[in-house]
Amino acid sequence: MASWLQIPKNSPFSLANIPFGIISAASSRVPAIAIGDYALNLNAFASSGGFSQLPAIQSHLNVFNQPTLNDFAALGRPVHRQVREYLQNVFRADTQFPQILKDNAALQKSALVPLSEVVNHVPMQIGDYTDFYAGLNHAYNIGVLFRGKDNALQPNYKHLPVAYHGRASSVVPSGTDLHRPQGQILANPAADPKLPTFSPCKKLDIELELACFISKPNDLGKPVSIDEAEDHIFGLVLMNDWSARDIQAWEYVPLGPFNAKNFGTTITPWVVLIDALEPFRTTGLEPGNRDNLLPYLREKKAENAYEIPLQVEVTNKGGKPTIIANSNAHNLLYSFPQMVAHHTITGCNLRTGDLLGSGTISGSEPKTQGSLLEQTNGKTPLVLADGSERFFLEDGDRVILRGSAGTEGNYVGFGDCVGTILPAVQL
Amino acid sequence: MASWLQIPKNSPFSLANIPFGIISAASSRVPAIAIGDYALNLNAFASSGGFSQLPAIQSHLNVFNQPTLNDFAALGRPVHRQVREYLQNVFRADTQFPQILKDNAALQKSALVPLSEVVNHVPMQIGDYTDFYAGLNHAYNIGVLFRGKDNALQPNYKHLPVAYHGRASSVVPSGTDLHRPQGQILANPAADPKLPTFSPCKKLDIELELACFISKPNDLGKPVSIDEAEDHIFGLVLMNDWSARDIQAWEYVPLGPFNAKNFGTTITPWVVLIDALEPFRTTGLEPGNRDNLLPYLREKKAENAYEIPLQVEVTNKGGKPTIIANSNAHNLLYSFPQMVAHHTITGCNLRTGDLLGSGTISGSEPKTQGSLLEQTNGKTPLVLADGSERFFLEDGDRVILRGSAGTEGNYVGFGDCVGTILPAVQL
Repeated sequence: MASWLQIPKNSPFSLANIPFGIISAASSRVPAIAIGDYALNLNAFASSGGFSQLPAIQSHLNVFNQPTLNDFAALGRPVHRQVREYLQNVFRADTQFPQILKDNAALQKSALVPLSEVVNHVPMQIGDYTDFYAGLNHAYNIGVLFRGKDNALQPNYKHLPVAYHGRASSVVPSGTDLHRPQGQILANPAADPKLPTFSPCKKLDIELELACFISKPNDLGKPVSIDEAEDHIFGLVLMNDWSARDIQAWEYVPLGPFNAKNFGTTITPWVVLIDALEPFRTTGLEPGNRDNLLPYLREKKAENAYEIPLQVEVTNKGGKPTIIANSNAHNLLYSFPQMVAHHTITGCNLRTGDLLGSGTISGSEPKTQGSLLEQTNGKTPLVLADGSERFFLEDGDRVILRGSAGTEGNYVGFGDCVGTILPAVQL
Repeated sequence: MASWLQIPKNSPFSLANIPFGIISAASSRVPAIAIGDYALNLNAFASSGGFSQLPAIQSHLNVFNQPTLNDFAALGRPVHRQVREYLQNVFRADTQFPQILKDNAALQKSALVPLSEVVNHVPMQIGDYTDFYAGLNHAYNIGVLFRGKDNALQPNYKHLPVAYHGRASSVVPSGTDLHRPQGQILANPAADPKLPTFSPCKKLDIELELACFISKPNDLGKPVSIDEAEDHIFGLVLMNDWSARDIQAWEYVPLGPFNAKNFGTTITPWVVLIDALEPFRTTGLEPGNRDNLLPYLREKKAENAYEIPLQVEVTNKGGKPTIIANSNAHNLLYSFPQMVAHHTITGCNLRTGDLLGSGTISGSEPKTQGSLLEQTNGKTPLVLADGSERFFLEDGDRVILRGSAGTEGNYVGFGDCVGTILPAVQL
């Protein structure tokens, strides 16, 4: 698909994508899409008749005059699909509706904003954030570190997508810098394993994840069946689940990670619709319809993952960027629909805007792991481009996650998921 | 304090209390207080000049025209205190302002609603719900069951208030019936410990807890100091953290409870202000200023708990009520201010309306434990009033938690926290 708009060939936001987000406009927040090097302000677009050729959305135009995407998401997948296809049509070189934008210089001027000038926000009001642990290789690698090869995976791992409730308040958009967290750590576990010290985190790590936003909610007491689960998913973002490994090691028994994960979780601000990812469907680490799954988790299709190359880059303060990992979204044992089905099987209600993380997406080879802990094993440091070594992140380190499916000129990508570590605050 | 309003001597809502909640009024939800057998509709009260003798609130009267208490809570503790004291004044037999309500039959008629006719709601929009594990006796009892007496408490337990993130979407008001959850359990762990079965939960339990709502928020990256933490707390409710023990036992490694707790959490709808509980301050299981706490958790006062008798009642379908446990809020090792300080020490932001649970509040003697698992040890069944036996809850069982501080005529109580278990839904 060619566009009348100049779209760089390496843009993650090709005409094949059309991701939705929330941007600042004047003093308010409004919905937008990203396309090439621009954002299209959907509030300005809608209020100037931009959707006049799409009858299905006419009674819902108010969703584009909201500070979050929740109302748009709640309209459901058939509407998202129509709006995306309509916007693709509007931007196509051979658009059926040239009068809408292609030949409308005034609306181009008022509604198209260079991405370099755009301020993004968390795109949805997140009710609850849940983080799964569906990255089999990550779970295995971590398990080997803590329990050895023979007991690396817990007995439940291949039967259900393990998860924990995360912290919604500290989910921040890409570009938000975070202070190094402080808390209780065991400064020298070997010397005295039971006496904690108060300290800035010394083992600050990243986790490379994908996450989905929920569109259609379900009522309390009404599980979502595996066959219907995908229609409850709005779209996906990239996510960095920053982790304080030393705080985690001391606090996590017996109820799991808490302070080690609650100080910040960074997501890309553009939600890639689930339909935009459909061409990249592939079989994950095991088929979605494998026989040894209980029926409530068994999908109709074997192909329950996506082929999306993922990348982790670290730059030390004033230094050169270093790609430290290349992974792929197919490194998951469970799909997002399986996560939805499992999450709701007890009757738990998901709400529009809820965020479900995949867990860390690691490959099984060196330089494919989505966390520093896995890459170094605490033994072999990473070497950055300037020769400096890392077991964990230092103050001033800048981390970028990237992910794009498809090929040049037609990338369906997430854009950069960026965060820089600031020093611990003075108390 | 005597009131011109007839207040039953055993009411949890004496003039010494004045708890805040949200009730249905016509087709909307409005703030209210509970007093004796009545709710006072604060929207009706405020819009008829009820607050005309309280200058401090004049510019904030819109908080009483909201569907949650969030805006009122965000005004901060000094305002809550003034409003509570003003309303006590209005209802006192010797009120300074008889014209406001005592001698105003029209406003009494329009704003006072019998509690028997009131529909309550979750009083705040909950951003995140966190559940702590501060009930030392509960943690010990459970630890003995899982790891034996010598390793009952984890090494971290006396150094920090252990917690996990809970599920906010399924927090429901007292009176909401819940379907028995379904999920993966090990039907016969002894025979084959690694092959799960899909089943309705067979070990459905309760957890007797208190929980606090947050009033004043803190910014991301800005910890709340222990000395300021109490001013971030709006008030307390009773909470039943329903727990599916068999689902929990299979799912919880390595990231903690998830589906076992996400199907419903019941709270009392009336928030008892932190100031109303001040007269009942006492030393908890250990002093709040004990030396072996790290400074960020050490309180100025030793007295960091409340003397509040608590009760658990179970009634089987068509049967007689049985009091199965008597406990007390003083059975906590950490206070709510300590929980706030710990929660935010990493920089985690708390928002107005966030809910922090205490963990199960158990005594150390028989019939004082706040969960069935502790009471029966899986060995000795409870015997209800009609002679029927229970290890865990059966369909139709009705559970009521109660808690009231103080003495007859002056109770500061929460009212009943009620829930009935319905059969599992048909899938």
